[in-house]
Amino acid sequence: MPGLPKLVPVDQALRSFLAAIPDPDPGSTELIRTEDALGRALAGPVIAPHPLPPFDRTTVDGYAVRAADTLGASSTHPANLSLAGEVLMGTAPQLGVDRGQAALVHTGGMIPPGADAVVMIEDTQAVNGSDIVVLKAVAFGQNVIREGEDVAAGQVVIPAGVRLRPQEIGGLMALGIIQVQVRLRPRVALLSTGDEVVNPATQPAPGQIRDVNSYSLGALVEQAGGRPIRYGIIRDSAAELEAVSRRAQAESDLIAIAAGSSVSVRDLTAGVIRTLGPPGILVHGVSMRPGKPTILAVCNQVPVVGLPGNPVSALVVAGLFLLPALRKLLGLRGPEWPSVRQARLTSKVNSAIGREDYLPVRLEVSPQGLLAAPVHGGSNMIFTLVRADGLIRIPPEQVGLEQDSLVEVRLFRDA
Amino acid sequence: MPGLPKLVPVDQALRSFLAAIPDPDPGSTELIRTEDALGRALAGPVIAPHPLPPFDRTTVDGYAVRAADTLGASSTHPANLSLAGEVLMGTAPQLGVDRGQAALVHTGGMIPPGADAVVMIEDTQAVNGSDIVVLKAVAFGQNVIREGEDVAAGQVVIPAGVRLRPQEIGGLMALGIIQVQVRLRPRVALLSTGDEVVNPATQPAPGQIRDVNSYSLGALVEQAGGRPIRYGIIRDSAAELEAVSRRAQAESDLIAIAAGSSVSVRDLTAGVIRTLGPPGILVHGVSMRPGKPTILAVCNQVPVVGLPGNPVSALVVAGLFLLPALRKLLGLRGPEWPSVRQARLTSKVNSAIGREDYLPVRLEVSPQGLLAAPVHGGSNMIFTLVRADGLIRIPPEQVGLEQDSLVEVRLFRDA
Repeated sequence: MPGLPKLVPVDQALRSFLAAIPDPDPGSTELIRTEDALGRALAGPVIAPHPLPPFDRTTVDGYAVRAADTLGASSTHPANLSLAGEVLMGTAPQLGVDRGQAALVHTGGMIPPGADAVVMIEDTQAVNGSDIVVLKAVAFGQNVIREGEDVAAGQVVIPAGVRLRPQEIGGLMALGIIQVQVRLRPRVALLSTGDEVVNPATQPAPGQIRDVNSYSLGALVEQAGGRPIRYGIIRDSAAELEAVSRRAQAESDLIAIAAGSSVSVRDLTAGVIRTLGPPGILVHGVSMRPGKPTILAVCNQVPVVGLPGNPVSALVVAGLFLLPALRKLLGLRGPEWPSVRQARLTSKVNSAIGREDYLPVRLEVSPQGLLAAPVHGGSNMIFTLVRADGLIRIPPEQVGLEQDSLVEVRLFRDA
Repeated sequence: MPGLPKLVPVDQALRSFLAAIPDPDPGSTELIRTEDALGRALAGPVIAPHPLPPFDRTTVDGYAVRAADTLGASSTHPANLSLAGEVLMGTAPQLGVDRGQAALVHTGGMIPPGADAVVMIEDTQAVNGSDIVVLKAVAFGQNVIREGEDVAAGQVVIPAGVRLRPQEIGGLMALGIIQVQVRLRPRVALLSTGDEVVNPATQPAPGQIRDVNSYSLGALVEQAGGRPIRYGIIRDSAAELEAVSRRAQAESDLIAIAAGSSVSVRDLTAGVIRTLGPPGILVHGVSMRPGKPTILAVCNQVPVVGLPGNPVSALVVAGLFLLPALRKLLGLRGPEWPSVRQARLTSKVNSAIGREDYLPVRLEVSPQGLLAAPVHGGSNMIFTLVRADGLIRIPPEQVGLEQDSLVEVRLFRDA
């Protein structure tokens, strides 16, 4: 490809790009309601203000006892205990359990003072209103969850940089932490360039096509926890692209420029990025398909990704470079566990030594297990990806993959 | 466990529950902007109003030619062609390509009438302003993507019941479909019961604990495309629970009742569900751990799930039964590809024949590959799940899994 310096391998390109991206600005956080925090990145560690559970609780329905009083108890030699009363749910016990005594407790209820174990109700019999017999011995601590067994006071329960899942939302609520400091969603500027590109709402004239990338990339950014800001469609003019890029640089945390598809226009993108400040372009040309003309830059602290204009290439490249940049801006801690499925390839695919290929595949269930069927189509055919469930990667050292090869399919996220 | 009829296997429980849930109401849809439709469920099929690409396009920078004119061309025997002009991006060609002619075209540009292939610019030389030489022959159709090659007019491009991903958003835009009919988000009523449960904003008195399930389940529902509606904390009173359940039944599409944890209170939940209408309770007690006391019901068309009150059990059971019910209400088409990772178990785990176990594990990278380390902790310890990356399933026919077993970890979603 003319105009491109030596192609850089994918992993090396990513490393040099990420190394140049600054750590998140400590001030770029906001305090929000925990119940609204699903998917947000935690800005600082969460410390438990008190232990969980906050008191000794029974894990079963039964009788709180002193374990020693049940020693050797069995159905043939039951232990007799006198009933000290009942611990009502949601209340502190108004009673204690002395030697020879038992108190009725319900799962989750507080263990009364003096008791150290709980006999399951199935292993007891009520003799009359004031006595029970225990048909099975219990050990010290049996059927009791101790104060602080889940979480100790002062413990870091969630480290900074975690993207909050339903269980973290629940855990925060259990600790009474109803507001939480999270990273602001990074603003991701999306620029589409090309004299042939028109707004999707319009009817394209012959030779024109509708803007896809502003929307597919916007949705990808949204999924990943960023805030897409669309700067619209920019003519193939260095002056116009430079003006919009400067505005985007002032107003956002990350810039993605989906280039026009011709070589001359890609050179135009690189030229404009060079004017945006140091250190500038780090990678221009990656040894991959699709995505060869990718540009990775950091300009005055703002990462800039120059994406190929073809919609398939743009989404693949964004997944490999834009999303990791976004993760760094969010302060997300690794490792991330990408969703993959193992499957067998339904047909041979070719690649080239030294180049990493990303091939869309559709998953199919068969009696022999999961199959991965290559979805053929050009990088300019967005419906190639609509028909696919994920991508397979053909590493640079391989010339291709044989039919029936076991492959790892990196699944696309559905929402 | 007293009070529970015969336990039902997980898959049988799910089948009978799903079979009783009505198909989505055809009227429960809304027309929204495509750019806001990420993660929404498509209500009807999308038909392409026109072909994609809408015209023959070049996939490279080069010269549009008649392939026959390049027959036998090579660097030693180049073919000479006269330059008919240039096709500017975004315009319909104002020229045609006759025999012996070539037109300069840029990637993505329209193929001019008469041409049937494109020679890459690298395989040509410009002789002067009006002639070029072709150094390599091209075949008919080479470097051209034909009108309709991605999508034909009238073709179903996205079937009903797809949850829209970034590529579907892009594909819709490419077709000029800027609004799309999607399913309303099902309203999922969340009821937490228990005399011991208090609002997370309050300081619990001894014996009280904060409500976790309304929030962890709410986040799970949100992730899955539903709209959580919290009905708050309900005392352990049949009258109160029945009154709130009736209100929830009138106002929502799916009801989840996270029961108080004691057996007596679970019986109370079942009793209330029995008053909500036919067919009523389908499953009461599932052969699994955690989650044995699960209740599955459909009452007057509204699915009702009775969840254990323990937060870990509640989330596991919701993943197995509440989310599939939500998928059915959304009209989502299968199959779904759950995210899994294969890993080796770091320690032996025990189970029981005839029971399905779900065990939280943390993933760890090792030189030998991915490891799955069981995260121990009771079902009442929400931070058990905070420390975990996913669940492993121990099938009913197994008594456990040995150390170093290869297991499939079902990953929790991060957002």
